Amino acid sequence: MYAPLQNDTFIRACMRQATEHTPVWLMRQAGRYLPEYKATRAKAGSFMGLATNTDYATEVTLQPLERYKLDAAILFSDILTIPDAMGLGLSFALGEGPKFAHNVRDEAAVAKLAVPDMAKLRYVFDAVTSIRKALNGRVPLIGFSGSPWTLACYMVEGGGSDDYRAVKTMLYQRPDLMHRMLAINADSVAEYLNAQIEAGAQAVMIFDSWGGVLSDSAFPEFSLAYTARVLSKLKRSHDGVVIPRLVFTKGGGLWLDAMGQLDCEVLGLDWNVNLGKARAQVGTHGKSGSNAKALQGNLDPNVLFANASQVETEAIKVLDSFGKPHTNANTTGPTHIFNLGHGISQFTPPENVEVLVNAVHAHSRTMRL
Amino acid sequence: MYAPLQNDTFIRACMRQATEHTPVWLMRQAGRYLPEYKATRAKAGSFMGLATNTDYATEVTLQPLERYKLDAAILFSDILTIPDAMGLGLSFALGEGPKFAHNVRDEAAVAKLAVPDMAKLRYVFDAVTSIRKALNGRVPLIGFSGSPWTLACYMVEGGGSDDYRAVKTMLYQRPDLMHRMLAINADSVAEYLNAQIEAGAQAVMIFDSWGGVLSDSAFPEFSLAYTARVLSKLKRSHDGVVIPRLVFTKGGGLWLDAMGQLDCEVLGLDWNVNLGKARAQVGTHGKSGSNAKALQGNLDPNVLFANASQVETEAIKVLDSFGKPHTNANTTGPTHIFNLGHGISQFTPPENVEVLVNAVHAHSRTMRL
Repeated sequence: MYAPLQNDTFIRACMRQATEHTPVWLMRQAGRYLPEYKATRAKAGSFMGLATNTDYATEVTLQPLERYKLDAAILFSDILTIPDAMGLGLSFALGEGPKFAHNVRDEAAVAKLAVPDMAKLRYVFDAVTSIRKALNGRVPLIGFSGSPWTLACYMVEGGGSDDYRAVKTMLYQRPDLMHRMLAINADSVAEYLNAQIEAGAQAVMIFDSWGGVLSDSAFPEFSLAYTARVLSKLKRSHDGVVIPRLVFTKGGGLWLDAMGQLDCEVLGLDWNVNLGKARAQVGTHGKSGSNAKALQGNLDPNVLFANASQVETEAIKVLDSFGKPHTNANTTGPTHIFNLGHGISQFTPPENVEVLVNAVHAHSRTMRL
Repeated sequence: MYAPLQNDTFIRACMRQATEHTPVWLMRQAGRYLPEYKATRAKAGSFMGLATNTDYATEVTLQPLERYKLDAAILFSDILTIPDAMGLGLSFALGEGPKFAHNVRDEAAVAKLAVPDMAKLRYVFDAVTSIRKALNGRVPLIGFSGSPWTLACYMVEGGGSDDYRAVKTMLYQRPDLMHRMLAINADSVAEYLNAQIEAGAQAVMIFDSWGGVLSDSAFPEFSLAYTARVLSKLKRSHDGVVIPRLVFTKGGGLWLDAMGQLDCEVLGLDWNVNLGKARAQVGTHGKSGSNAKALQGNLDPNVLFANASQVETEAIKVLDSFGKPHTNANTTGPTHIFNLGHGISQFTPPENVEVLVNAVHAHSRTMRL
């Protein structure tokens, strides 16, 4: 049905298999820093107009691949499509973050929640299939969703937040409601990601963008447990091909030991984390046995505002902090997937992304010599 | 000159000496969640009007002590008084964060920076002396400042920021300018805190509120090194009495090993950190020898939006996560100072603060039995 994969570097690195260079892609690589993206968005009229139109979603997903030698594509969509399908009414004002028409703050609102009919998310699955076809095997396509906890943050707050007061008030005051919402979110995310896999996604990533706002005692109960619930329900393979699963908890660096126990292949890390230490902790076979993870990250996106030579220097610093990936084609071992530690800024000079991608490829090849 | 200290629990805990209960105070304990604070601020007309008036600053510093059995007072002021004294023009619109009239974004602006004349900060030192007198020995008075890096964030951004793009652009593009600014900031903070000590502060705290936005490779160079520079210049005692020094890096939990090497007595921790692990890492004599630190923190301020019994439960959880403090009056050992992991929210119900303070005192006494 689809063309065979020509560049499988990303998939192999996810599976902790040796690669010739360190694969690189960037969170939000299709986005506002690209003039061609802005042109397509202007045609679409709104963010959701863009995300719900198969042709536009395909077009913007492929735009960064035309410019840069990226090793993966990621579905153009948003982490909040599920609560939108639950009827909360997602919108994006120009230049602003997501907003819901309805929020979920009391028992009655939680009681109304249910796993949405996946038919309402058909536009996402259609986009996945269309993008997969358009990629024609160039690089693999990553599907994604927000984590159950991150979805809950937005559902309760009704949008972004500085202090997460509403969602944490519910968490501390009505943990029963919070657990009910998180269970529904987890089952929704699992169905959603499985449908993306069936539609053609070759890897899936769970963005726990707000896991890091939780306390050390609340994180395992309200975020990690529900990420684990999603993972337990995900398809491991499709059409006989393994589907790697990536989990990224922004601000979760202190909980790497616990995250190392997740049933997934890759952990995403932000720029607070030392990649060398993380590799020793969860990236290497040892006391954690077969749970060893591939690691993804973790350049500070603000590095891309520096000069070209400084971008190179900082990219090399990240590669060197991970250290030499294993190179034995016959075994698995520590692998690194280069990425930013968070989404790319809309103000990024596009030419610096090219410098970055090329520096990662060039330096990571020399590291393997 | 001053009345002798009646409740020295906080000071003893800072020095890792045994205490009968775990001392507790709250970051921003004098503030907008108290109706009496709002009344005083209305009289003062503005935040800076409040902070620069000795009588008002004294009044609001003591307000929470009238309500709660807190074990320390903290000077009512702001972390940004130094850049204001440098001429950047600090103001606070009602309900909003700090704003500077001028920011520092280029070589010319950095070249103009200098350690400010401490006479311009006389209002702070006068407030310290006035508060110390008004306290009349009830509890010790903590003086404070922003860290060199945190001051730089506000100076470059001109106020708060979502992404720290301006300050990080300077950091990555012109590290020479950033280092120059940080050196001036460090020397200013040291002079400022020493003057607070001379004016009557019995402990001093450095708030590195934005240390946690730095990458693992940038934190030691751009934040920690300059906090260390401040500490190296601080008075160790005044009038023959030791002055404990506290350092709090919000979001710095991953760098505890490095922070454990700082020449200070106490490390503040946010709610991401597991207190038991932190105690094992930096709170106990061992491989780090005499560098062991007292630990301060780390309740999520949002717990205070729950019901009274839940506030108690969560407070006990924090105390238990640290574990039993040492109780031997003849030696030093692991000690805990209870606090929030960040400033108290302006929306906090005042009655829950009473529940919290009393729960900390009651449970921490039973832990010592």
